[in-house]
Amino acid sequence: MTQNLIEELFKPALNNPVLSQGHDAAIISVGNCQMAITIDAHVVRPIFFPGGDIGKLAVCGTVNDLAMCGAKPLYLSAAFILEEGFKMADLCRVVESVRITAKQIGVVVVAGDTKVVERGKGDGLYLVTAGLGVIEHGVEPLPKNIQVGDAIVVSGDIGRHGIAVLSEREGLNFETVVESDVDAVWPQVERLLNLGIPLHCMRDLTRGGLASVLNELALASGKKFEIQEDLVPIIEPVKAACEILGLDPLSIACEGRFVAFMPKEFTEMAITALKEFGLNASVIGFVKEGSGGVILQTSSGTRRILEMPLGVELPRIC
Amino acid sequence: MTQNLIEELFKPALNNPVLSQGHDAAIISVGNCQMAITIDAHVVRPIFFPGGDIGKLAVCGTVNDLAMCGAKPLYLSAAFILEEGFKMADLCRVVESVRITAKQIGVVVVAGDTKVVERGKGDGLYLVTAGLGVIEHGVEPLPKNIQVGDAIVVSGDIGRHGIAVLSEREGLNFETVVESDVDAVWPQVERLLNLGIPLHCMRDLTRGGLASVLNELALASGKKFEIQEDLVPIIEPVKAACEILGLDPLSIACEGRFVAFMPKEFTEMAITALKEFGLNASVIGFVKEGSGGVILQTSSGTRRILEMPLGVELPRIC
Repeated sequence: MTQNLIEELFKPALNNPVLSQGHDAAIISVGNCQMAITIDAHVVRPIFFPGGDIGKLAVCGTVNDLAMCGAKPLYLSAAFILEEGFKMADLCRVVESVRITAKQIGVVVVAGDTKVVERGKGDGLYLVTAGLGVIEHGVEPLPKNIQVGDAIVVSGDIGRHGIAVLSEREGLNFETVVESDVDAVWPQVERLLNLGIPLHCMRDLTRGGLASVLNELALASGKKFEIQEDLVPIIEPVKAACEILGLDPLSIACEGRFVAFMPKEFTEMAITALKEFGLNASVIGFVKEGSGGVILQTSSGTRRILEMPLGVELPRIC
Repeated sequence: MTQNLIEELFKPALNNPVLSQGHDAAIISVGNCQMAITIDAHVVRPIFFPGGDIGKLAVCGTVNDLAMCGAKPLYLSAAFILEEGFKMADLCRVVESVRITAKQIGVVVVAGDTKVVERGKGDGLYLVTAGLGVIEHGVEPLPKNIQVGDAIVVSGDIGRHGIAVLSEREGLNFETVVESDVDAVWPQVERLLNLGIPLHCMRDLTRGGLASVLNELALASGKKFEIQEDLVPIIEPVKAACEILGLDPLSIACEGRFVAFMPKEFTEMAITALKEFGLNASVIGFVKEGSGGVILQTSSGTRRILEMPLGVELPRIC
């Protein structure tokens, strides 16, 4: 529904060449500098979940949007919308989480705003973050640069964030507590850039997960992607939780994973680099001739179209 | 309360030299460019009011924060937090208002995000906007540059925005409908800069109005301000509404007015320029020797301290 809203209402109304890029962040030029800017509203419930909280999520989510454009994140601004009666201790915890996460990534929170709304007019805390990054490597990781023959690399195991938030929210107890994968991916992207790997396109696996991202990119690039289900890294507890809940792990959101398109000959170098970050990165498929669509070679040996997930399987996970 | 929150929680936690400037926007450098960035959450109720709406308010509010740093606004990003059931027609109206306002100012909306929350977890629509501007004139309109002898200029009549929103919200009927002053002040600031007027400091008269801004700047600059009440431009309907409601017009928020500090010899030029924008600009007082504080010479001839407004007189007006 949000996707429709964006397409039908916002894009025509605010039509301009930058917004039309349809990228995670907008690429702009000021003087001689090429930069990326982005904004994200965070309404996750609960605000504290295994492996993270709304503060860490906001910083990472914004930084990741910049990283997906190949931009080094420099500055953040943050707006807090607080519901009257929101616990000060919880606010302190969130602010501390913003501070620590920003510090780890080396990004500086330079501007902020706080608004308080009456009880019943909010939901504790909404946190909106905007980010500014600088593009220094001269790569253009855009859908239009995806080429036939490109390998499709996933940076690590998928689906943890969605399951972590859902479990906490619904009070589900699985054998193993699944921790969110929420993390800043810039250090990983920077490493790949520094290694000189030609990143044709990148996208983080947020809302709608891998299935959604691949479908969007296939459509935007006008290419066909062939993916092998067995090669998609998913940890056992996520698989088990998805089975119990009747969810498809391929459409569960991550907050610290991305997909990257690159020439086949660079995949070994990329996978090795990503594994050094402790990530179970994997080549999951290739770009083929043909028009936009995603084909999944299933574990059972059949081939089927991997559809765009319909509707929002998991609301308010970011 | 918000002021306390910022001072006690956010500043120490996110401590860094840029945030500590305590400016309307943060001044940063990327490459050779000096820029300003800012973020504002808008929770105004009602979202449509005489003279404007949340969309125009968001664009102007953000652009004005940039202008107060002497920055030419270039790019905006916008995040919409929608409550389930919010009327599509109203959303279209707001987006159209964002579009028109941005176009008039010459600023481009390059990035956006939309989140939908359940009924009862929001209040129709919250709109957060972040802005990026470039500083080309090399002026530093900061509190520390306020000098003894500086004239204090108000760009136009004050208090309309607060009264417009309050009247609409409370269903008050005054003889004359007061329209909000919501407007982008960048064209006016740019004019003053192009005229070569040394703007020692600027601040827009938002939350807490003139009284709040003058107190903050007196404190930050360590100077004393002497203001003549008679010289503060206020239209009759605002005066009348304030009298009926028991409010002090000096502490009512505007969304299209600012105060500027400049050497006395430039005031005629500044006032003339501002009047060309149809604004009833006025020199309202001067900076004097002495430590932080604001003295008001009242209409009745007495002198009193103009206090920082206590508490939030009018909640959710921006």
